[in-house]
Amino acid sequence: MEVGFLGLGIMGKAMATNLLKHGFKVTVWNRTLSKCDELRELGASVGETPAAVVARCKLTIAMLSDPSAALSVVFNKNGALEKISSGKGYIDMSTVDAETSIKINEAISSKGGHFLEAPVSGSKKPAEDGQLVILAAGEKSLYDEAVPAFDVLGKKSFFLGKVGNGAKMKLVVNMVMGSMMNAFSEGLVLADKSGLDPHTLLDVLDLGAIANPMFKMKGPTMIKGNYAPAFPLKHQQKDMRLALALGDENAVSMPVAAASNEAFKKARSLGLGDLDFSAVYKTVKDSQS
Amino acid sequence: MEVGFLGLGIMGKAMATNLLKHGFKVTVWNRTLSKCDELRELGASVGETPAAVVARCKLTIAMLSDPSAALSVVFNKNGALEKISSGKGYIDMSTVDAETSIKINEAISSKGGHFLEAPVSGSKKPAEDGQLVILAAGEKSLYDEAVPAFDVLGKKSFFLGKVGNGAKMKLVVNMVMGSMMNAFSEGLVLADKSGLDPHTLLDVLDLGAIANPMFKMKGPTMIKGNYAPAFPLKHQQKDMRLALALGDENAVSMPVAAASNEAFKKARSLGLGDLDFSAVYKTVKDSQS
Amino acid sequence: MEVGFLGLGIMGKAMATNLLKHGFKVTVWNRTLSKCDELRELGASVGETPAAVVARCKLTIAMLSDPSAALSVVFNKNGALEKISSGKGYIDMSTVDAETSIKINEAISSKGGHFLEAPVSGSKKPAEDGQLVILAAGEKSLYDEAVPAFDVLGKKSFFLGKVGNGAKMKLVVNMVMGSMMNAFSEGLVLADKSGLDPHTLLDVLDLGAIANPMFKMKGPTMIKGNYAPAFPLKHQQKDMRLALALGDENAVSMPVAAASNEAFKKARSLGLGDLDFSAVYKTVKDSQS
Amino acid sequence: MEVGFLGLGIMGKAMATNLLKHGFKVTVWNRTLSKCDELRELGASVGETPAAVVARCKLTIAMLSDPSAALSVVFNKNGALEKISSGKGYIDMSTVDAETSIKINEAISSKGGHFLEAPVSGSKKPAEDGQLVILAAGEKSLYDEAVPAFDVLGKKSFFLGKVGNGAKMKLVVNMVMGSMMNAFSEGLVLADKSGLDPHTLLDVLDLGAIANPMFKMKGPTMIKGNYAPAFPLKHQQKDMRLALALGDENAVSMPVAAASNEAFKKARSLGLGDLDFSAVYKTVKDSQS
Repeated sequence: MEVGFLGLGIMGKAMATNLLKHGFKVTVWNRTLSKCDELRELGASVGETPAAVVARCKLTIAMLSDPSAALSVVFNKNGALEKISSGKGYIDMSTVDAETSIKINEAISSKGGHFLEAPVSGSKKPAEDGQLVILAAGEKSLYDEAVPAFDVLGKKSFFLGKVGNGAKMKLVVNMVMGSMMNAFSEGLVLADKSGLDPHTLLDVLDLGAIANPMFKMKGPTMIKGNYAPAFPLKHQQKDMRLALALGDENAVSMPVAAASNEAFKKARSLGLGDLDFSAVYKTVKDSQS
Repeated sequence: MEVGFLGLGIMGKAMATNLLKHGFKVTVWNRTLSKCDELRELGASVGETPAAVVARCKLTIAMLSDPSAALSVVFNKNGALEKISSGKGYIDMSTVDAETSIKINEAISSKGGHFLEAPVSGSKKPAEDGQLVILAAGEKSLYDEAVPAFDVLGKKSFFLGKVGNGAKMKLVVNMVMGSMMNAFSEGLVLADKSGLDPHTLLDVLDLGAIANPMFKMKGPTMIKGNYAPAFPLKHQQKDMRLALALGDENAVSMPVAAASNEAFKKARSLGLGDLDFSAVYKTVKDSQS
Repeated sequence: MEVGFLGLGIMGKAMATNLLKHGFKVTVWNRTLSKCDELRELGASVGETPAAVVARCKLTIAMLSDPSAALSVVFNKNGALEKISSGKGYIDMSTVDAETSIKINEAISSKGGHFLEAPVSGSKKPAEDGQLVILAAGEKSLYDEAVPAFDVLGKKSFFLGKVGNGAKMKLVVNMVMGSMMNAFSEGLVLADKSGLDPHTLLDVLDLGAIANPMFKMKGPTMIKGNYAPAFPLKHQQKDMRLALALGDENAVSMPVAAASNEAFKKARSLGLGDLDFSAVYKTVKDSQS
Repeated sequence: MEVGFLGLGIMGKAMATNLLKHGFKVTVWNRTLSKCDELRELGASVGETPAAVVARCKLTIAMLSDPSAALSVVFNKNGALEKISSGKGYIDMSTVDAETSIKINEAISSKGGHFLEAPVSGSKKPAEDGQLVILAAGEKSLYDEAVPAFDVLGKKSFFLGKVGNGAKMKLVVNMVMGSMMNAFSEGLVLADKSGLDPHTLLDVLDLGAIANPMFKMKGPTMIKGNYAPAFPLKHQQKDMRLALALGDENAVSMPVAAASNEAFKKARSLGLGDLDFSAVYKTVKDSQS
């Protein structure tokens, strides 16, 4: 199967590499073309423009940094849209909002192409290991066609229905995660201020019904006050806000998510927005000594 | 090692059985003495009263249903206290409040005995499998002496310092758990009302950084509306309240735990207190159709 | 002074009437022109279209039901914009969002006109009595020019700076009001369930430092379960949401407003959105008897 | 009518003075007896001990600083209880918890006396002006007997039923007040950070449906950062906590009060507990500049 791949950032490079290693023929493009060299050495072809990639491949995957990049790769001059035609498939695996997905979907569809949004759960390491979780939504036939590629890129892919559902699912997951991070932070601080060793709390938690990788991985660094950003707090807070907005649309009252969102906002107001989202712990902890 | 065991409810019977199976000599007592028969068949001796058990054993473990039972077994006529003397050890593994532990500790100590509170994390199945998590606090020398028994009863035991710390650790863990249950419930309802399949959310969660046994086990039954009580909601809410009170003492602000506590209170007000604590999901979900 | 007046709904009619009674020459327009008759009898002139009114008057006031009406009166064929020219003033006293105000402002300014947004606090009765509170923002010179009219329409007018500030001030006020309504509801229910007479609570509150007209007016009807809509709950919740969004922009953490917003959302989910915003009391109160 | 008066602190002195000025015969006692001199000059008799006062008067009022003072004046040697006998009335106007009231009530009643708890709303100035609000509960016949005195001490007195109801009513009022203070603080900060003048917000609020003396009085000092304690934040937070505990007993979910309580706790953790309760504003406001 011949696959186009647009965007060779940290995630995209790892993903395109995996496709090549598993025998896919891949044509890559990146805004800074020199970043294509490494992939070329692994056997990839290089397209000069997004349009050139789409012209050549029946199926094109995009993995871009944000909504504006995702839009410009489609709509700019020499963008993907110019060569979309009946039967071509375009899969955007970037994390974008529902509006962006819907806009791209309409443009692709109006030219007879098929579209799938397919944001992923997981960052650099899972991308390298082919262990992403893929939340796809849009054209079911395109999903079926893409399954062999998804099987290489991720440990599991889901087809979630109409365009927008992939983004929504990601918001729901991140909302639960954000509330859990707050609950965890409160627990660590309560233990500490009550004379218990927070490290022991980590050990106890890890043996029980709520043991999970996030507590295990983040706990020790939080206690040390190390908040190197894996997922920046301001992005986590934005996702909480969007999840609450989704709840607003559907009249779902979510007081715990709302309290968590305000805690993240407090952290932002204290200048912690660019640190890891676990830095909310710092705002719970800080007190007059 | 000869060990006394007071209280043969669901938990106590499983625990005493494990001790017998692993070669401990055990003398048991239960308020309804007939419940001792099964243990006797497995090789246990039977004591007529708590005092009789303590008289016979250097180390006595109690596993009782609530604080008032824990107190009466010690302080009533023919209670454990009557035969406590220098060098005797008394370990209360019941889940009781700090005041109860402290009161028992003072009485035991005043007669030259040693005391340990050792509440456990885990219910029937882990008790049977010797997979409890034991949160011990009190006399360190008694803890060291009890380690062989703890190794049989649990997969891990912790020594947490002075009496009261075992109860506190349990409150912190249950507080985090209660907030997580609320976050989880909000996520399930948001998914559902936003047109996503809650079962798919369970699958996605189970593949990510916040995957944990509780979500995996409770999720499917919650979606079905099955709230058979493993841990009654009113007890979970009581623990949230006590954890918030502990935060109050130590000036720890915990807005997410507070919001979760109010959600559990709403559930209580709607008559769900005797159901499983996962029934808080019902109060998040219910709306005018 | 000659003033144009667009929109003769409940509020607009009362306001235009006041202007006439205080000696202003007024030219009115309403989408359903027959509604102008009553004003004509009081001495008003009638314009056939918004454009016709603006052509005739140096200063035109609009009081329309919602943002879309506010926009169409300006931008539609024969709309106010067609006859705006250098020196003309246009004052929109409708309650609209900041975007709407900004859009109208840009259009008016681009033709040399002056613009003021001037939402009001107060409903029918204060409008009739000339007791509105006017929250004006935009062109200061136009505000100065409009002061004689504002003095007739309201008991007090404020000039708040640039366009958008009027809407923001209204959001802040409504946010405080929404949280107070929740606090009040919780107090009434707590009194009731604790064996105190809620009517006595009203009496006690009315004698103290937090006595206010809203508690006095709404309390008795809330206790009766009468939620005839003066300010619909769904609009109150929308304002809470917008105020929280304003807080999000400016990194202001507002946990009490957030908790109140979720309570209003719960009320919406229970089908109370079209009732008065005091119906949030019902969601606090309802329990299994 | 002859009235005993125990406790001549700021409040008690003002109250006893008012009774004297309105023609009551008053016998006073204070722990530091020299404080009685001023009252003696106004015509009061002085008792050497609480017992001596009760021996002399059919009706005795106590106004003490806290529960422990309230208890010791009754139960200590030469305490009020020694001379309570059939037909004597004892009215405790101190602010104490329900347990304290109940304990005093039982002791007084067991000797044939009558008891009333009667905490007040209002501080120094209203006490001097006879403008307190009196929340009485207990023996109705004693209330009726005390009405002439209450009419002098307060602008209004309420009879609320059984002992404990006075304390409960005060908690409910203070809970609503605490939530309002948080809502107000959030509004002031939101205004400020959104580019609006907080003083203008005060003016707008003061003209509307939620205008109240607290906003008017506290607003300007809060903006200045002046938190001289009229009602210490730690006491306000304690009352929020007790009100939430009352809600817990009665299964009343109060998410807004809970969020407010956590905000006050945050303020305590930042060392603001001894300042006025309006200092919660500071925790909402502080951010990284």
